[in-house]
Amino acid sequence: MLIVLHHSATARDVEQIKKTITKMGLKPVAIPGAERTAIGVIGNQGWVDDSPLRDNKAIQEIIHVTKPYKLVSRDFHPRDSVVRLGGTVTVGGKSPFLMIAGPCAVESREQLMKTAKFLRKLGVPVLRGGAYKPRTSPHSFQGLREGGLELLDEVRKETGILVITEIVSPEHVERVAKKVDILQIGARNMQNFDLLKEVGKIRKPVILKRGLSATVEEWLGSAEYLLLHGNPNVVLCERGIRTFETATRNTADLAIIPLVKKMTHLPVIFDPSHATGKRDLVLPTALASVVVGAHGAMVEIHPDPEHALSDGPQSLHFKEFERLLAQVRDLTVFKQRKLSGI
Amino acid sequence: MLIVLHHSATARDVEQIKKTITKMGLKPVAIPGAERTAIGVIGNQGWVDDSPLRDNKAIQEIIHVTKPYKLVSRDFHPRDSVVRLGGTVTVGGKSPFLMIAGPCAVESREQLMKTAKFLRKLGVPVLRGGAYKPRTSPHSFQGLREGGLELLDEVRKETGILVITEIVSPEHVERVAKKVDILQIGARNMQNFDLLKEVGKIRKPVILKRGLSATVEEWLGSAEYLLLHGNPNVVLCERGIRTFETATRNTADLAIIPLVKKMTHLPVIFDPSHATGKRDLVLPTALASVVVGAHGAMVEIHPDPEHALSDGPQSLHFKEFERLLAQVRDLTVFKQRKLSGI
Amino acid sequence: MLIVLHHSATARDVEQIKKTITKMGLKPVAIPGAERTAIGVIGNQGWVDDSPLRDNKAIQEIIHVTKPYKLVSRDFHPRDSVVRLGGTVTVGGKSPFLMIAGPCAVESREQLMKTAKFLRKLGVPVLRGGAYKPRTSPHSFQGLREGGLELLDEVRKETGILVITEIVSPEHVERVAKKVDILQIGARNMQNFDLLKEVGKIRKPVILKRGLSATVEEWLGSAEYLLLHGNPNVVLCERGIRTFETATRNTADLAIIPLVKKMTHLPVIFDPSHATGKRDLVLPTALASVVVGAHGAMVEIHPDPEHALSDGPQSLHFKEFERLLAQVRDLTVFKQRKLSGI
Amino acid sequence: MLIVLHHSATARDVEQIKKTITKMGLKPVAIPGAERTAIGVIGNQGWVDDSPLRDNKAIQEIIHVTKPYKLVSRDFHPRDSVVRLGGTVTVGGKSPFLMIAGPCAVESREQLMKTAKFLRKLGVPVLRGGAYKPRTSPHSFQGLREGGLELLDEVRKETGILVITEIVSPEHVERVAKKVDILQIGARNMQNFDLLKEVGKIRKPVILKRGLSATVEEWLGSAEYLLLHGNPNVVLCERGIRTFETATRNTADLAIIPLVKKMTHLPVIFDPSHATGKRDLVLPTALASVVVGAHGAMVEIHPDPEHALSDGPQSLHFKEFERLLAQVRDLTVFKQRKLSGI
Repeated sequence: MLIVLHHSATARDVEQIKKTITKMGLKPVAIPGAERTAIGVIGNQGWVDDSPLRDNKAIQEIIHVTKPYKLVSRDFHPRDSVVRLGGTVTVGGKSPFLMIAGPCAVESREQLMKTAKFLRKLGVPVLRGGAYKPRTSPHSFQGLREGGLELLDEVRKETGILVITEIVSPEHVERVAKKVDILQIGARNMQNFDLLKEVGKIRKPVILKRGLSATVEEWLGSAEYLLLHGNPNVVLCERGIRTFETATRNTADLAIIPLVKKMTHLPVIFDPSHATGKRDLVLPTALASVVVGAHGAMVEIHPDPEHALSDGPQSLHFKEFERLLAQVRDLTVFKQRKLSGI
Repeated sequence: MLIVLHHSATARDVEQIKKTITKMGLKPVAIPGAERTAIGVIGNQGWVDDSPLRDNKAIQEIIHVTKPYKLVSRDFHPRDSVVRLGGTVTVGGKSPFLMIAGPCAVESREQLMKTAKFLRKLGVPVLRGGAYKPRTSPHSFQGLREGGLELLDEVRKETGILVITEIVSPEHVERVAKKVDILQIGARNMQNFDLLKEVGKIRKPVILKRGLSATVEEWLGSAEYLLLHGNPNVVLCERGIRTFETATRNTADLAIIPLVKKMTHLPVIFDPSHATGKRDLVLPTALASVVVGAHGAMVEIHPDPEHALSDGPQSLHFKEFERLLAQVRDLTVFKQRKLSGI
Repeated sequence: MLIVLHHSATARDVEQIKKTITKMGLKPVAIPGAERTAIGVIGNQGWVDDSPLRDNKAIQEIIHVTKPYKLVSRDFHPRDSVVRLGGTVTVGGKSPFLMIAGPCAVESREQLMKTAKFLRKLGVPVLRGGAYKPRTSPHSFQGLREGGLELLDEVRKETGILVITEIVSPEHVERVAKKVDILQIGARNMQNFDLLKEVGKIRKPVILKRGLSATVEEWLGSAEYLLLHGNPNVVLCERGIRTFETATRNTADLAIIPLVKKMTHLPVIFDPSHATGKRDLVLPTALASVVVGAHGAMVEIHPDPEHALSDGPQSLHFKEFERLLAQVRDLTVFKQRKLSGI
Repeated sequence: MLIVLHHSATARDVEQIKKTITKMGLKPVAIPGAERTAIGVIGNQGWVDDSPLRDNKAIQEIIHVTKPYKLVSRDFHPRDSVVRLGGTVTVGGKSPFLMIAGPCAVESREQLMKTAKFLRKLGVPVLRGGAYKPRTSPHSFQGLREGGLELLDEVRKETGILVITEIVSPEHVERVAKKVDILQIGARNMQNFDLLKEVGKIRKPVILKRGLSATVEEWLGSAEYLLLHGNPNVVLCERGIRTFETATRNTADLAIIPLVKKMTHLPVIFDPSHATGKRDLVLPTALASVVVGAHGAMVEIHPDPEHALSDGPQSLHFKEFERLLAQVRDLTVFKQRKLSGI
């Protein structure tokens, strides 16, 4: 921790601050400068609670050098984590590039089964489908909820495909975890800490999406909740951030993927559908995610996007997805990686 | 709804789209222009589901004229809503300017009681205090939780002050509603829709904070959830938005207050503490909120901010708050309004 | 300056970095921590060029404590600057609250003269009017340019009002400075450094608007250009920043005004017209600027806003402006300040 | 153009607005809805000036369907533009992927010559180098200015490499155009309209960078200035936008590249150095730009980045650039394209 004093701080201010630091069980080191003095703080084990200092009028700024997360940091766990999703399917490290696909919302048995069979045929190992749908307007379709869970469970039993669905409330954890293979925590719930704690108590794999306006640090802080409460099977998912630009639904922050991979040992995947919100941009950004080193991608597809109950404009037709998958496969081969499930 | 076609759309495209609209039970009106054709859609009662159209290659853009909310809109309820918080205390319309104050987090019986008595003495009718604390890092203080609720209940019984606390999980609704007078839904939970639905089922007054990157439309959409599920006692609270500027903790969006008052009949208050994150900016922005027409303000204060367990740097000392209250009172008198609870 | 090393940095890395610092003529102070070492740098006079260090693989972060500006900083010039605009009109410090008003663009002699006489009658000392108009589309009205300057000059001579206009190119400086009393550097040109240098060479008062996405530090950096090149007569103007919210044209960053006043001795005014882009929001935010401590406000008015050639929707009618002025006057009196020019 | 009326608009309001539209020489078409009426406007040739309407109290919103640019739009020029940079080097359409590289700033003859020879050896056809440097602080290195231009001219004559440099002032156009092959308009000057007009008057190829907070529409509006004033040789360059995230210098908006290619016929390249600000992120994002369909990339390299006078932390060493170039070449071959200049 570094404490920067105001230009006007007196020698007495410096002494007083040094005393406070000593009382906190730490060691102060004064760093006098031409324009102002700074005081370095030594001896802390992890994050320091700066409350006894924050209010001192002589202090201009307190700079924390230690990060607010530890378990997810590569500093303390240098090797890539590999998360097992079910069967032989893994993500992270040198695992094949993971492809997840499916409709935004579970709408009917037929829609889901048709999609699952299509994916199985292509060798895609994981089906996504929302049972509980967070929607801006209460007048929009809210998902089939429990009915949707049942359909996901039926479909995975019948086809052997792994299924993932979003969880939106801590009280659903037990119920949802029984019916699906992987949980998803959505962007709007990235800082729903009670949900994080509850999902942290089980060991189901969980995909944690980045919040619409979450910094990388906040995102890793949320992942830290999951690990601290006992669940190490966490996969991060970049899905676009909110910026001033409205020509795309969100701004795909692809550069953050290689950066996050340096900061954490957890796998990181990409969601090109929400990141762009436009069908035509899904393919190019999915390919870009392979190239920047993502561990996988999650894509919205629908047997009949024109009649999808949500996110139609960003959902691919089956034909379009086949094309995408073929191009992703070629690109992973070119990059001397593999594609999942094949 | 207006459908804008691509420059290249043919007469046949136009015919096909008009047919689809007719099948949807609506009436199309073509608006040919020099560069492209648009089609107006007539006859809808409220929000139109555009899924049968969204995917048409000839369509460039679909513009919704109807808003995704209705119950909260001033269009359908032109008179100001006045929300009764408890006893004779109300907010909204011509009610006196409401002042709420208290610590970020409930820390101890002594801290809370001291603050409540101080506020009572000044005539401030509502005490805030967080029992469940949403924190970026799991290593930070998480609140006293149930213990904090008990303290709030004790204090309100002993002093007669109204208390407000944040609710973070749908399963807490019943428990929390018993112990406090007003619920708060925090910025990070503004789109926790399961929480909104649950709080919508009771009739306790609820303060709904604007999300860090929520548009006004999304904010009103969240309020719509509360009203639609049965709770009309909703108060909006602007608390700063996330922007590129980091010199302040958030960017106080004061201009949105008069704008929102035109869009909705619900009361709107302001939180200068979170909006700025700096003690020195709390007073000027609280005064500004009076001037732009806010119905109240919620301010963080602490008997000993230097030792606060959270948000110390933005919490006012008692002396500072007295000064703020005096200035707010003078300004409300000047604006020919009143200050609450006096 | 503080240099934070990576967790993995070795003792040898530390030694090497300390050597480099010594070679730079500065003094390193190691601050070993539990998780990583930091090195404080002592002995610099002002901003340190960190290029010899930036590239060291063992370094995680370099934190500058010294700011990139000095002349504009209150640290080195604690007393408020007062800028004389012409005649007895000043802005800053304890000067009366300065009101500037006028059309977005100079359109005709009649329009300008009518506005000038109206303002004179009300006691408003400064008339604004754009001769050169920066417009997003080249197909929009670009201003009367030199013709507009002539009209401004005529009008000031005839009425005695002070006039301000925007300058958009370094080669116009001489020409424009002859015809007007005050120059304005617009938001889009805040980092047009050649323009800043040129305007820095004369001593005409200049209003420097904050860029659409400029941090406070960048804004002060631009003001530093003006002072460093010789012009101390600088007035800052907050005019709203660009954020994700599109319900208002920009987001009025009112809280930045008291913050900037702590950082610099220069006067700071507010432009409620561009900050909000909506006529109805001009009055409340102009009043708010008085309350947060702005030294003045600049408001767009037009004798006939419905036919204005630019910015009509945010321009006030004369009647509306009279109302605004009356309310601003009352509020300044209430705040024991004065209003300019009366 | 579509005019949306307020819920409360009367039949008389509708009549009046229709009359105004007729007076404007256009044709109104009323579109009555359940909640409010809209009025479509027909018969315009291009952008409509809405000033006679904007101020009507009965109008809620005016939606422009026509875009503020025309010459740059693909609607009116469906085929890709190919811009000749010099000799046989072109960019856009099916031209090979263009690679531009060089130091942020021209620092010395030796530095520039060394870089030029290195690039020539690798077959890179264009050398970048800033002579005039826009810097946030006036205390930072401002470039060699005219001296830098001379060095660029010498180097291109001696090595035959094409050179590009940034132009920052309209009065430099003639001077700079004589000494270099390609001009660059930087992000901070994207809306320096006097500069755009001046550069529009010559036919030198020009790279127009996107502004830090410029929407795609504004960016294309700026390109329209260049074309309208006579210069068709415009290349767009995405270089990252400013968002709330500070972990990278800017947010690389890679998804905008395929989107912009649909909107305009102009070539679009990518600058991974400014978009990310971190050396480690330059390679992955440069590769991503190939995959999303950029027509080229511009990369900062330096013979000795540790001692660069600006942008050291984002400049690649020669070895790193060789690696990048090899990977870009392999990827272009894989994508069945070519790499420039080889």
